Amino acid sequence: MSKCNKLGIGLAGFGTVGSGVWNTLEKNGALISERTGKGVSLAITKILVRDPKKSRSTTSAVPSEILTTHWKDLVNDPAVDIVVELIGGTTDAFEIVAAALLAKKPVVTGNKALLAERGVELFAISRKMETPIFFEAAIAGGIPIVKTVQDSFIGNQIHSFTGIINGTSNYILEQMTLRGIDYPTALQEAQSLGYAEADPALDVNGWDAAHKAILLATLAYGFPIDPANIHVSGIEQVRPTDIRFAKSLGYVIKLLAVIRERDGGAVELRVQPSFISHKHILASVNGVFNAVSVNSDAAGESLFYGRGAGQGPTASSVIADLVEAARDLAHTSHHRGFLPYRESGTLVPIEETSTAYYVRFDVTDRPGVVAEIATVIAKHKIGISGTHSPVDASNPDAEFVDMVFLLHSCPFGKLTNALAEIETLNCINSTPVVFRIENLG
Amino acid sequence: MSKCNKLGIGLAGFGTVGSGVWNTLEKNGALISERTGKGVSLAITKILVRDPKKSRSTTSAVPSEILTTHWKDLVNDPAVDIVVELIGGTTDAFEIVAAALLAKKPVVTGNKALLAERGVELFAISRKMETPIFFEAAIAGGIPIVKTVQDSFIGNQIHSFTGIINGTSNYILEQMTLRGIDYPTALQEAQSLGYAEADPALDVNGWDAAHKAILLATLAYGFPIDPANIHVSGIEQVRPTDIRFAKSLGYVIKLLAVIRERDGGAVELRVQPSFISHKHILASVNGVFNAVSVNSDAAGESLFYGRGAGQGPTASSVIADLVEAARDLAHTSHHRGFLPYRESGTLVPIEETSTAYYVRFDVTDRPGVVAEIATVIAKHKIGISGTHSPVDASNPDAEFVDMVFLLHSCPFGKLTNALAEIETLNCINSTPVVFRIENLG
Repeated sequence: MSKCNKLGIGLAGFGTVGSGVWNTLEKNGALISERTGKGVSLAITKILVRDPKKSRSTTSAVPSEILTTHWKDLVNDPAVDIVVELIGGTTDAFEIVAAALLAKKPVVTGNKALLAERGVELFAISRKMETPIFFEAAIAGGIPIVKTVQDSFIGNQIHSFTGIINGTSNYILEQMTLRGIDYPTALQEAQSLGYAEADPALDVNGWDAAHKAILLATLAYGFPIDPANIHVSGIEQVRPTDIRFAKSLGYVIKLLAVIRERDGGAVELRVQPSFISHKHILASVNGVFNAVSVNSDAAGESLFYGRGAGQGPTASSVIADLVEAARDLAHTSHHRGFLPYRESGTLVPIEETSTAYYVRFDVTDRPGVVAEIATVIAKHKIGISGTHSPVDASNPDAEFVDMVFLLHSCPFGKLTNALAEIETLNCINSTPVVFRIENLG
Repeated sequence: MSKCNKLGIGLAGFGTVGSGVWNTLEKNGALISERTGKGVSLAITKILVRDPKKSRSTTSAVPSEILTTHWKDLVNDPAVDIVVELIGGTTDAFEIVAAALLAKKPVVTGNKALLAERGVELFAISRKMETPIFFEAAIAGGIPIVKTVQDSFIGNQIHSFTGIINGTSNYILEQMTLRGIDYPTALQEAQSLGYAEADPALDVNGWDAAHKAILLATLAYGFPIDPANIHVSGIEQVRPTDIRFAKSLGYVIKLLAVIRERDGGAVELRVQPSFISHKHILASVNGVFNAVSVNSDAAGESLFYGRGAGQGPTASSVIADLVEAARDLAHTSHHRGFLPYRESGTLVPIEETSTAYYVRFDVTDRPGVVAEIATVIAKHKIGISGTHSPVDASNPDAEFVDMVFLLHSCPFGKLTNALAEIETLNCINSTPVVFRIENLG
C-alpha cells in the first residue's frame, strides 16, 4: 500500500460534522493507522470554509494556511487525495463533487438530498471516471447500513426495509407520546435543544427520511428512483388525540419509511406517520435514535440501531468511508458494490399499496354523521374495524369534533376515492387525516 | 478484475450451512454478479464430504464428480481459488485452514471455536502468507458484526460490547420465562425442535458465546486472548424460581457476553447469566435471535440484531465473505482490518470486575439463617439491597429452602471471598448460585 501511506483529505464544509472528523482523526488517527497495519494514515490538508476568521471549537488548532474560501482550491490541490463534501444542498455541493470525480479524486459525502435528487448524474460521472462516491454518513448517521446492504447482504434478495430514519421526527413524536404535549410545543422544544433545525421543514415533512429511503431502495434494487414518484407525508398533522387513541389500541405512532419489493420486482416506497404495535422492536426506538429493520431471503430478519445524526456518529461514518477510499486508491479496481446497477425498474404506484388505515375526520357533530361516512366507505367496499369519537373532555359540547375510523387493509387508491367522496359531504369540515396502520409481523 | 471473473470455491463440509451456501449461490448467483458489475462470479468446484453416497437436500443436483473424501484434494485442486471451512472442530479444521493459507488460498470460516482456540497460530500463517481469513459467519450468524467492527467502526475506540450471542440459551431462557418450565424440560424441547444439538454442552455452558466474545474482543482490542483466562458460566443453573424472582424486580435473565475496556486499556471479558432491566432493548431479544450492543467513542450507542444461526443467515455471511475474498484476490493488498494487530494486551482478572449480584443459597430453614449469612456479608463490607425466600407454595414446610440475597455492586473477588466463608456455615447445603445484575444504563 506504499502509494497511499499518507493520504490528504480535503474537507468541503467545516461545521458540526467537519469539526467531528477533525477531532476524531486527532483522537483516533494513530489507532486507525495501527489497525490498518500502518496501511492508512489520514491527514486533513485543505478545508473549504465560508469565513476563515470564524472561531472553531476543535480539540486542536486548525492552521489558518489550510483554510480556503475557493472550492476549486480543494479539487486542484495535489495534496488533496480524497474530497469530503459536507456543505449540504444540491447546487454548490453538486459542482464540488462532480469536479472532484472528474479530477479522479474519490468523494465521501453525507449529503442525502444531493444523492437522492442528483445521484443519477453523479454516479454516471463516477462510473465514467472509475472514481467512487462513498456515502455511509448519508443514511442514519452512525449506523453502517450502507456497507451492510452493499457488502454484507450482497448474497441476499432484500424483501423489505422498515426504517425510523429521521431522529427529529422521532424525538418530537416521543415527547408528544410521553407528555401529551402538542406538535408545535414539541417542535419548539426540539429546536431549543438543537434536535431540530431553525428551518425544520425537511425533517418534519418527511423528505429527509424520504431521501434516505431513496438511497436505501437504490442500494437494494439497483435502479434510480425519481423523488417525484414517491409518496411522502410528515408528522405535522399528528395530534395528541391521535397518539392517545393509538395507545388505547396498543399502537405507537412512528414516522416510518417503508420499502418493499413485490413479486415480479416492482418496488413500494413510502414515508408517513404510521401506527405500529407497541410490542414491535421498532416501537422501542426512542429519542433521536434511528433504526432500520431489514428482511432478506437468506439472512432473514435483522435490525440495525444507533444514533442517526450528530457530530460523533456522522464523523465515524465519514472516517470509515475515508479508510475504504484509501484502501481503494491503493487498488486497481474501483468497484463499489451496487449503486446503481440497473438503468430502470418499476415503482409501485402509491394507489396500489395496501395497509389498514386510521382516518381522522373533522366533522360537524350531529346525528347521522357516522352513518353518512360509513355509507360512502361501504359503497367503496372498504371494511370498517372500528369508529371512535375521542371526545375533548375540556369541551364536551363542541360543535366540531374529531371522528376516527379504523379501516381494514385496502389499496390506498380505493381509500382516496372514498375520501374524495366523503369530503363532499356537508358534515365534513376539512381534509381528512390518514395514517397507516402497519402490520410488522 | 479480469483475473477473478470466475472464482472456484472449495467447500470443506456439506451439512446445513454448506447446503445453504450451495442453494443461495444457485438462487442469487446472477444477482451477485449483476451487483458487482459482473466483477464476481462464484462457482462451487469441489466439496469435501464424509460420505459421497449420502443423499443431499439441495435445490439443485450436486454433480458427484465434484465430491471428494480427501481434504488435500480441496487445497491442491487448481480450480479451487477460495476454501470455505465448515467442518467444525479444532483439529482437522486447523489442518485444512493452515494448508489452504500455505497454498495462498483465502479461507472463509464460521468456526468460532477454531479461531478462539487456535486463531493466534492461524493468523500468524495468514500474515506470513499474505492470505486472508474471513470469519463473518463465526459471530452471530447473519449479523454483520465482524465487518461492522473491522470496517465501519475503524475510527472508533470501542468502549464495550454487550451481546446475546447464543440462540440456544436465549431460546431456553425465553421458554422458561414465558411458561415457567424448568431447565431440563426447556432443553429437551429445544433439542426436539432442532434449536439445540444432541450434545448441547457448548451452547448451554456458555462456551459457544465465549468463543464469539473472544473474537469480538480481539477485533476491537487487537490482542490475542487465551480462553483459559476468561470467566464463563452457562445457563444450567438457572431455575424457574430465579426467573420469577427476577421478574418481580423488573428484570429478565439473559446469557450475556460482556466485553469492556477500562481506562488504561485493560479489557474485561465475561459470559454469564445476567439480570437486565426488562425495559432495556436487549430484554426484547427473544427466541433464537442474537443481538450485539456496541458502545464506542464516536458512533455512540448502537445495536445489531438478527438471526444468530441457521442455514440462510450463516450462508449469507459466508457469501459476503466470499465476495470480499474475490475482490481481495483481484487486488495486490491483502490487508484485512484489524485482527490481531497487537502482540499482547491486558485482561481484567474476573476478581476485579464489579456488578451487583443475585445470590441464591440452599439453606436449612431455621431461625438465625439470614442473620448468619448477613453477618459474613457485612464482615466483607458488601452491601445488601434485599433478601427474599421464594417459598415453594407446593411445599411450604420444606426443611431445605432457597434464600436469595441481592447485593450491591462490588468486585467479584470480594464476593467470592465472602461466599467461601458463607459456604462453611452449617446452614448452607450446597454451593451458592451467583448471577450478575447488569446495569445497562
